[in-house]
Amino acid sequence: MSEQVSSEKIHLPKTSESEDLKKIRHTTSHVMAMAVQKLFPKAQVTIGPWIENGFYYDFDTPDAFSDKDLKTIKKEMIKIINRKLPVTREEVTREDAKARISAQNEPYKLEILEGLVEPITLYHLGDQWWDLCAGPHVENTGDLDPKAIELESVAGAYWRGDETKAQLQRIYGTAWQTSEQLDEYKRRKEEALRRDHRKIGKEMGLFIFSDLVGPGLPLWTPKGTLLRSILEDYLKKEQTKRGYLPVVTPHIARVDLFKQSGHWQKYSEDMFPMMAESQEEKEKEIGFVMKPMNCPFHIQIYKSDLRSYRELPMRLAEFGTVYRYEQSGELGGLTRVRGFTVDDSHLFITPEQLDEEFFNVVELTLSVFKSLQLSNFRARLSFRDPANPSKYLGSDEAWEKAQNAIRNGVTKLEMPNFEGIGEAAFYGPKLDFIFQDALEREWQLGTVQVDYQLPDRFDLEYVAEDGTRKRPVMLHRAPFGSLERLIGILIEEYAGDFPTWLAPVQIRLLPVGDDFVQFAKDTAAKMQLLGIRAEVDLGGDRLGKLIRNAEKDKIPVMAVVGAKEIESNSLSIRTRAEGELGSLEIATVIDRLVNANNTNGNF
Amino acid sequence: MSEQVSSEKIHLPKTSESEDLKKIRHTTSHVMAMAVQKLFPKAQVTIGPWIENGFYYDFDTPDAFSDKDLKTIKKEMIKIINRKLPVTREEVTREDAKARISAQNEPYKLEILEGLVEPITLYHLGDQWWDLCAGPHVENTGDLDPKAIELESVAGAYWRGDETKAQLQRIYGTAWQTSEQLDEYKRRKEEALRRDHRKIGKEMGLFIFSDLVGPGLPLWTPKGTLLRSILEDYLKKEQTKRGYLPVVTPHIARVDLFKQSGHWQKYSEDMFPMMAESQEEKEKEIGFVMKPMNCPFHIQIYKSDLRSYRELPMRLAEFGTVYRYEQSGELGGLTRVRGFTVDDSHLFITPEQLDEEFFNVVELTLSVFKSLQLSNFRARLSFRDPANPSKYLGSDEAWEKAQNAIRNGVTKLEMPNFEGIGEAAFYGPKLDFIFQDALEREWQLGTVQVDYQLPDRFDLEYVAEDGTRKRPVMLHRAPFGSLERLIGILIEEYAGDFPTWLAPVQIRLLPVGDDFVQFAKDTAAKMQLLGIRAEVDLGGDRLGKLIRNAEKDKIPVMAVVGAKEIESNSLSIRTRAEGELGSLEIATVIDRLVNANNTNGNF
Repeated sequence: MSEQVSSEKIHLPKTSESEDLKKIRHTTSHVMAMAVQKLFPKAQVTIGPWIENGFYYDFDTPDAFSDKDLKTIKKEMIKIINRKLPVTREEVTREDAKARISAQNEPYKLEILEGLVEPITLYHLGDQWWDLCAGPHVENTGDLDPKAIELESVAGAYWRGDETKAQLQRIYGTAWQTSEQLDEYKRRKEEALRRDHRKIGKEMGLFIFSDLVGPGLPLWTPKGTLLRSILEDYLKKEQTKRGYLPVVTPHIARVDLFKQSGHWQKYSEDMFPMMAESQEEKEKEIGFVMKPMNCPFHIQIYKSDLRSYRELPMRLAEFGTVYRYEQSGELGGLTRVRGFTVDDSHLFITPEQLDEEFFNVVELTLSVFKSLQLSNFRARLSFRDPANPSKYLGSDEAWEKAQNAIRNGVTKLEMPNFEGIGEAAFYGPKLDFIFQDALEREWQLGTVQVDYQLPDRFDLEYVAEDGTRKRPVMLHRAPFGSLERLIGILIEEYAGDFPTWLAPVQIRLLPVGDDFVQFAKDTAAKMQLLGIRAEVDLGGDRLGKLIRNAEKDKIPVMAVVGAKEIESNSLSIRTRAEGELGSLEIATVIDRLVNANNTNGNF
Repeated sequence: MSEQVSSEKIHLPKTSESEDLKKIRHTTSHVMAMAVQKLFPKAQVTIGPWIENGFYYDFDTPDAFSDKDLKTIKKEMIKIINRKLPVTREEVTREDAKARISAQNEPYKLEILEGLVEPITLYHLGDQWWDLCAGPHVENTGDLDPKAIELESVAGAYWRGDETKAQLQRIYGTAWQTSEQLDEYKRRKEEALRRDHRKIGKEMGLFIFSDLVGPGLPLWTPKGTLLRSILEDYLKKEQTKRGYLPVVTPHIARVDLFKQSGHWQKYSEDMFPMMAESQEEKEKEIGFVMKPMNCPFHIQIYKSDLRSYRELPMRLAEFGTVYRYEQSGELGGLTRVRGFTVDDSHLFITPEQLDEEFFNVVELTLSVFKSLQLSNFRARLSFRDPANPSKYLGSDEAWEKAQNAIRNGVTKLEMPNFEGIGEAAFYGPKLDFIFQDALEREWQLGTVQVDYQLPDRFDLEYVAEDGTRKRPVMLHRAPFGSLERLIGILIEEYAGDFPTWLAPVQIRLLPVGDDFVQFAKDTAAKMQLLGIRAEVDLGGDRLGKLIRNAEKDKIPVMAVVGAKEIESNSLSIRTRAEGELGSLEIATVIDRLVNANNTNGNF
């Protein structure tokens, strides 16, 4: 059975989107702090902001909070809510604030006060408790719904996030407008855990990590490698149809290459350290570095010959593995890694070809998303900020032209979109595809960038129809973005139940006894010849176990083989998506699988 | 027309193989030195050894030798030969030698003398000239054949190869037993230049190098990338048939991985410098390095789960790009590079499976060579030196077993072979495939190694049938060796005329006028659907030019399209190998091309 998200879709607003939630979460964090100080008089308060799905508060306290403490604190909070204390705002002078804080012996508040600008405001919960706060808040603690509040976890934190300063206890909580929202939030949290691609990836045996190899560097097992090739082969086919030309380039280059491209000046923080034979070489910046991007390499191929307008658009494409030196604390699973494969292409085009080529790239990207069965996405048009022209390189005219090309392409394709003013790269505007998953989490997938800058830096040319030398424009594009990240997102989105055409194993034949093994093997071999990824369970288990194993391995189609099936040249089919389908002729099963493969669809 | 090597095969012995050639070349170098000193009295002699195909002599002289000088020197040499001077050996004391050299004012000879051990021998040319030399020599200068001698080139060299010492002039020459040998040698030299894969690779547009990227790091153009994929896809298919499992692993790892594998201790000189954030990290050897080999990565995948004997042999395969820090002076074209892709596989097997798996690996390798149409190779069995057992790790029994597996496999397959005693790796014996090309040059292609050592270092295990934990054996193997090197060798061997199944473009349709372009395009499209790499020349040139261009691009099959052809639904075929074939039905042409692809053959 395919895993379904709750059928009645409840939208969960983010704090940043809802003034009401801001008020609720601000007040709930104050209520929690008041409860903590009542129960733990030695606890000193520090900061307690709202966050995307709730709030937290950091305390300096000699006692570590336990899960049991959280329950006690929650009970105390309910009491405070039920007392319906009015929440009142008071504006005070800095001196007054200082005097009052000093009287309470709250050194952190004093430090916070120093950083505040006037007017300085306090918020009171009745006459029992107050905190420095800019608000906003609900009017009365009775406006909070205890059934919409949950204290979630405790974690250590440092004052000001600085490891050399005091260690604090942070309590995370969440608060919503209604208990239904809280329930939905909790359901999604559980669902996210269940769908965690690190967990599913391990269960399905797709990739591993190794301490000896290092964090953020996945190793792909045979099954995961198969999944990668299915994706790569699919995109290669689509690209070949559209006139892309595959190339292969090294994973390293001399620093000089990245100086000329500008990556060294702008991007070296994100690059792996240089490979230098000596300290002197290091200082002189003579040495090799791993590539964080493929563009300058493709440019070298373009530049290796004098190009004619007849050769343009030249669409060089590579599944290029790049390496970026993410901080090891930021690494987790496949969605943030140190080495990843970009389905990269660089299109070298004449300025006149911009509109058409941009449109074609977007069309390809949309067709890719459709095949991947991802439908819920928007286009972010990342444009320059017209109020700040000095931030960008290139003429007004070029920018207008490029931004119009993006806007026209998106309009023509009727894509849901929004403009991100000021979010362009310094060398050109771009279009980012933002995908929202089943749990309303947003992921950035593919990107298309228009670039007038690198052609200048590398002095690229082509011979125009009139014989003059002209400067080409470059498009950078990657529909998948990163193969690793895409696979992580797909696992979470499908909860491991890949569409049939993508599943590493598409059908597993389950012979219910030794007598039926040969028939199952022959049938699987027949399927394999047609490009179907079929396998036979040779475990010799009883039917119940065979099916349970196939369900656990998330095989889309299970085919039971027994005496009845052999006699009728058919298979008893059970699918993950629809359960028992009964007996189907082998030819029909094959047709449906071949069709799934040909149409990027399901069984 | 296919390029043919001279039909009457003359074998050219190497100096190291022929006592006669040693004598001839030693004496010729003395004759040359005598001639030089006669013509250039200020020239001081240094050393003048034989080399593989001839000899050289280094002189300290104020004048740079010109090509014209070489002619004059050669004339003088002929005079010396024609004088039939006896070559006589004299044994002298060190003091005597010193006195005689000092009298001649030859400071280099004096330095050479210091390094010599007794007995010290001089060789005289008549009573005119002598040199310190250990011989051997011919008996009389008249034994040399002036028609079998050639002075080839002049180059700069340093005394003792040391840049801080005096700069010398080196004259290269060659000398043979007969003028026929010299002619053959000259023909091969020309032929080697003509076949030079760097030249042909550039002409065919297969790969480029970029100064900004760095030496030894080829970038593959669309056409070269196509050639790579044809080779990769071919081998992948063969490997899938034989139960290999593809994996993908990163290009870098922490130093720790290579410490455990032993590469860091044994191999770090050949690795790119470490990527370390600081000098401290560098000293502590905390950091990342580029992989020089794929084995430890595949081992991590093996080790990521407890393996059962049922899973063995486990054949993990990867087209893994590795990086080795060859000295930049050693880099040239594709045959010695700093980054290359190994068609790598590591087989994890039970000790009992060794014979069969080794045999299967050799069988696969031979089938690969057959498809590549390379037939002239021998197997070198690189075994341990039984006189020096301490050089090797592992028990006598394991070595005997491994060496027998290699010997048996080679015998069973009736491969020409020779034993290289003492040439095993310290961790196990290996089999190297030595290919001899059309010019009698030898290249090492694929390798198979038996390894008991890495399974120990990584403490690899499997659960045996009896439930105990046992140690697997590893086979390392790569039929291509390196994709880059293989392509370099193939280009030279075929002189760019790839077998039809390998050619990036297999057939070019040549419409002889605008009216025939559409038919040519339709025919090419029909061919492309069947996997034939067909293209149409849209240049609009006249037939002669169209054919010349296709010949230059070394397209195996050219198909002329005109009115007559369209009417009869046929093509006028001309091949590189056989010239004009006349008119063939389109269906026949397609059949022959599909057949070439299916059988790894020719049109």
